[in-house]
Amino acid sequence: MTSLLISREDLRFQLYDWLGVEALLQAPRFAAHSREMFDAVIDSCERLAADVFAPCNQAADRQEPQFDGERVAVLPQVAQAVRAFADSGLLAATQDDAVGGMQLPVVIEKAALAGLYAANIGACAYPALTIGNASLLLAHGSPAQIEAFALPQLRGEWTGTMCLSEPQAGSSLSDITTRAEFECDSQLGPQYRLAGRKMWISGGEHEILGNIVHLVLAKVPDADGKLPPGTRGISLFIVPRSLPRADGGAGERNDVSLAGLNHKLGYRAAVNCALNFGEGRHTPGGRAGAIGYLVGRPGAGLACMFHLMNEARIGVGLGAAALGCTAYLHALDYARNRPQGRLPGPAGKDPTQPQVPLVAHADVRRMLLAQKCYAEGGLGLVLYCAKLVDEARIAREAGDAATALERERLLDILTPIAKSWPAQWCLAGNDLAIQVHGGYGYTRDYKVEQFWRDNRLNAIHEGAHGIQGIDLLGRKVAMDESAAFDAYCALLESEIARGRASIHTDWADALATRLARLRDVTAKLLAVPDPVARLANATPYLEAFGHVTVAWVWLGQALALGTRDDDFAQGKRQAARWFMQWELPRVDAWLDRLADNDDTALAMRDAWF
Amino acid sequence: MTSLLISREDLRFQLYDWLGVEALLQAPRFAAHSREMFDAVIDSCERLAADVFAPCNQAADRQEPQFDGERVAVLPQVAQAVRAFADSGLLAATQDDAVGGMQLPVVIEKAALAGLYAANIGACAYPALTIGNASLLLAHGSPAQIEAFALPQLRGEWTGTMCLSEPQAGSSLSDITTRAEFECDSQLGPQYRLAGRKMWISGGEHEILGNIVHLVLAKVPDADGKLPPGTRGISLFIVPRSLPRADGGAGERNDVSLAGLNHKLGYRAAVNCALNFGEGRHTPGGRAGAIGYLVGRPGAGLACMFHLMNEARIGVGLGAAALGCTAYLHALDYARNRPQGRLPGPAGKDPTQPQVPLVAHADVRRMLLAQKCYAEGGLGLVLYCAKLVDEARIAREAGDAATALERERLLDILTPIAKSWPAQWCLAGNDLAIQVHGGYGYTRDYKVEQFWRDNRLNAIHEGAHGIQGIDLLGRKVAMDESAAFDAYCALLESEIARGRASIHTDWADALATRLARLRDVTAKLLAVPDPVARLANATPYLEAFGHVTVAWVWLGQALALGTRDDDFAQGKRQAARWFMQWELPRVDAWLDRLADNDDTALAMRDAWF
Repeated sequence: MTSLLISREDLRFQLYDWLGVEALLQAPRFAAHSREMFDAVIDSCERLAADVFAPCNQAADRQEPQFDGERVAVLPQVAQAVRAFADSGLLAATQDDAVGGMQLPVVIEKAALAGLYAANIGACAYPALTIGNASLLLAHGSPAQIEAFALPQLRGEWTGTMCLSEPQAGSSLSDITTRAEFECDSQLGPQYRLAGRKMWISGGEHEILGNIVHLVLAKVPDADGKLPPGTRGISLFIVPRSLPRADGGAGERNDVSLAGLNHKLGYRAAVNCALNFGEGRHTPGGRAGAIGYLVGRPGAGLACMFHLMNEARIGVGLGAAALGCTAYLHALDYARNRPQGRLPGPAGKDPTQPQVPLVAHADVRRMLLAQKCYAEGGLGLVLYCAKLVDEARIAREAGDAATALERERLLDILTPIAKSWPAQWCLAGNDLAIQVHGGYGYTRDYKVEQFWRDNRLNAIHEGAHGIQGIDLLGRKVAMDESAAFDAYCALLESEIARGRASIHTDWADALATRLARLRDVTAKLLAVPDPVARLANATPYLEAFGHVTVAWVWLGQALALGTRDDDFAQGKRQAARWFMQWELPRVDAWLDRLADNDDTALAMRDAWF
Repeated sequence: MTSLLISREDLRFQLYDWLGVEALLQAPRFAAHSREMFDAVIDSCERLAADVFAPCNQAADRQEPQFDGERVAVLPQVAQAVRAFADSGLLAATQDDAVGGMQLPVVIEKAALAGLYAANIGACAYPALTIGNASLLLAHGSPAQIEAFALPQLRGEWTGTMCLSEPQAGSSLSDITTRAEFECDSQLGPQYRLAGRKMWISGGEHEILGNIVHLVLAKVPDADGKLPPGTRGISLFIVPRSLPRADGGAGERNDVSLAGLNHKLGYRAAVNCALNFGEGRHTPGGRAGAIGYLVGRPGAGLACMFHLMNEARIGVGLGAAALGCTAYLHALDYARNRPQGRLPGPAGKDPTQPQVPLVAHADVRRMLLAQKCYAEGGLGLVLYCAKLVDEARIAREAGDAATALERERLLDILTPIAKSWPAQWCLAGNDLAIQVHGGYGYTRDYKVEQFWRDNRLNAIHEGAHGIQGIDLLGRKVAMDESAAFDAYCALLESEIARGRASIHTDWADALATRLARLRDVTAKLLAVPDPVARLANATPYLEAFGHVTVAWVWLGQALALGTRDDDFAQGKRQAARWFMQWELPRVDAWLDRLADNDDTALAMRDAWF
């Protein structure tokens, strides 16, 4: 709390009282751990966040990465922060002991990362992508590929990226044109030469660690030299910045070069760039063309990449929530310490009395309560998703396929929510944090404006907001005969039943009403025959779904308080009340329009604008 | 339209078809004008905007004002833009012929300024404050003060500022501590020596024109040397940067000096700074102390300043709406020209077909429609308020005191809405403009991120968002036995009656339902005896009031279309439909909570956070 990053008291409550993560300790996978060890990991991340990541957050924003024609220079303190993270062993936190990991639950890893994200979200892009990259390779790479590319990342020697978008293909991956031509078989898998341009590559070029492992989507031409159309023609390749030497170190430069840095609104600690593959700047093995090693089957690239993308989407939600948390704590700190004005009414009209702190004004408490709802609600949603990853794995390892499937389905359906809801609402919270600061919040002397700018990216990258809506309504709620949606409804209904048996009957009823409407609306939308019309309001659907889901988070947290009536519990309860009274009712207007699938946007014509 | 600043077609429609501003030509004050002359003024501002203001908007953002220890350097192109504005005669656009003005309606001035605000809102701060400063002096200054300080501003020779806030007193003006001690009588009025610190002074120090006229709030100590408490002890002073010479030019430096520049998130073309008055850096007349001339009566300073402040609040709304308009046009342009993806369904699954432009996606049209609603609705609201200024003046000059009073009351009650609604919702529109641009929108290679940053100030300055709520609920709806609120309800009811007689019966009914609820909620809130409790939800009240008001704007614009069915009319109608279907229903949830004056924020305690 003193570092104003993440409230440890809240984190403790969410993990142990609400999510009950100690139950995970009963699984063989986590048997060597304890609550004390979980806390120690979170402690050590908190120190790293406060001592190394936070101090350079503003400096990294003001001095973004520069390219001098030869090298990309990252602020030295950012490079040090990334190296400190790499040295901590946290890159392999959730991996098996066998690959040098700590075999920690994902939910604990995410809880620990929250403080780092809050401290310097841009600097966290490097380790976050490295973790995801290595994790994809562990799942889909050959043993030789794991040895050569995943383990150096997990050991903190190399970093990783994901290269999906191209300048002409962002949301529409089926239109990528990066070409991969088969060259030969190799120890590291089928070897190709890649040529093409990739865009928005975070961590794409720098010299913070010894090498960069790019995971690249590309298409293999058919016999006529044509690229196969659509996403089914996409394959996945490992394209290292430098080719691995026989001894495992980074050797000859591959034909990957910087096309240009992107100059962003925020997230500036993270290099983000366009990369050219195979333009001939380097000639590995004596000729132009970026050497890449096929991962998995040809044409299965997107499926493999979704492994990383789904992790990244949870990570985006976590980052957005972390920024919501830290901005909230900064606003709260300011509101408690800044005297301004007096209360309305006769008592407040006496200007000889000292001014009251901002927090004494109901409107400021309103802004703080809303922020608390967004930040802690968003964090709770993401941590719940992380726990689902752990529970699915435990169940699968215990041979309980049914439970594993149910947990995986819940994760599937909640991923677009966990990605989009914190990005939207914690940004709204950051906006309120600026407002609480008044004119000072609009200056760069305070931190909240940077949180707001940084957080704005989260509704864009790793699948833009609208794409999440299409994923939810166009895929997730319908798949497997609505099995995931049914699991979701069952989850909420069980909490509603618990709520009805508690003092919070009214909140349980309020949630039940909206869940029933969401179920009705979902059935109606899925019955719309024309897919264009069916998905026309996918974004408002996503947003309504999100608010219902976070109402469930808040109901659950209120129930987890039991009869506690200390300050923390009262605050939590009041935030839950705020969500139920002021936030959840927002969905009614959206659900009304969704119920008859209002066609205002659909019917609008280009020429009419 | 080609300059992507403000749609001239929409402006034409709003002014002539909806607001019917040609009716103003019948008043003696405007008899020398014509629609052609109105359009010529708007044309010339549009050229100034496109040719001079817009080209340096991004440069001014990247190279903010610098202080070298001696001088504040403003980007030369910004200084040129301000001088070009000054040379255009527009500073006196609405003033009487007798003082060198053009005697234009305020509504035409605002319409003309919209393009300039859209082009470079930071650079517009200088002329906007100068116009307001001179206008205050014309209303409250002595003939000698007008001659010495207002006319040089209207002639474009000097600029002006308003100095209200202090580092410790922002929203709470009663706590200012700047002290003004009487020195002597002078030709320019009672002469005082001022000492104190002022904060957030836009245009506070620079050398763009020949002098700066500061209008400063300060307190005159009583016989014991104590400053009178509260706002009633506040007086208003003219404190020029350089004292006027006998020939009217700028002479000896006054004791006003720069304490520091503020480094802002946006609006960077405008110098914003802290000023020290009377710290002894200069010694006018041989001694320290900033020379100031009292305007009006002692203790009436705040009332005088509200003259400028109310104008400034409409100006803030105009700036916010203008940023909404230009960001919308940029997003629309991008959406029409950027191919990305294909439509859902079988047809869209053929990746051999070319990608469709973004605007072909219903979700993108949704984001564009919302932007159109916010931008054109906000602009309409502000233009309507400007027309009220004209109508009140005309009525008063024609001896029709009742009409004048009614128009002034409407202006009074609409001012907090015109200030806050565009600031809130056009910012939301700017956020959508970034989203339409995808990753590119997050880079500084596109303009939308700057619009978003610039616009963020508008909910803060000239009375923060929460202050507007307190002004509306705590003052405006109750004053004169609710006369202003009654006038407001009558205004909406007359449009509802017209709507019911049109094809838009359903929209008229929708508005009528919400107006009835707003009326009911207003009565309930005004009946709450405890002022702290009464005002606890003033902000949600402001926001509900705002949405109801803008629904009235859209209903009115839809009615003004009549039977037109060209592309423009269809687009306008579809935007109105969007507002009625998706926006207006938002207020129901807020009104529900307001109806029982929910006390969640009020009951929240500091210790619980």
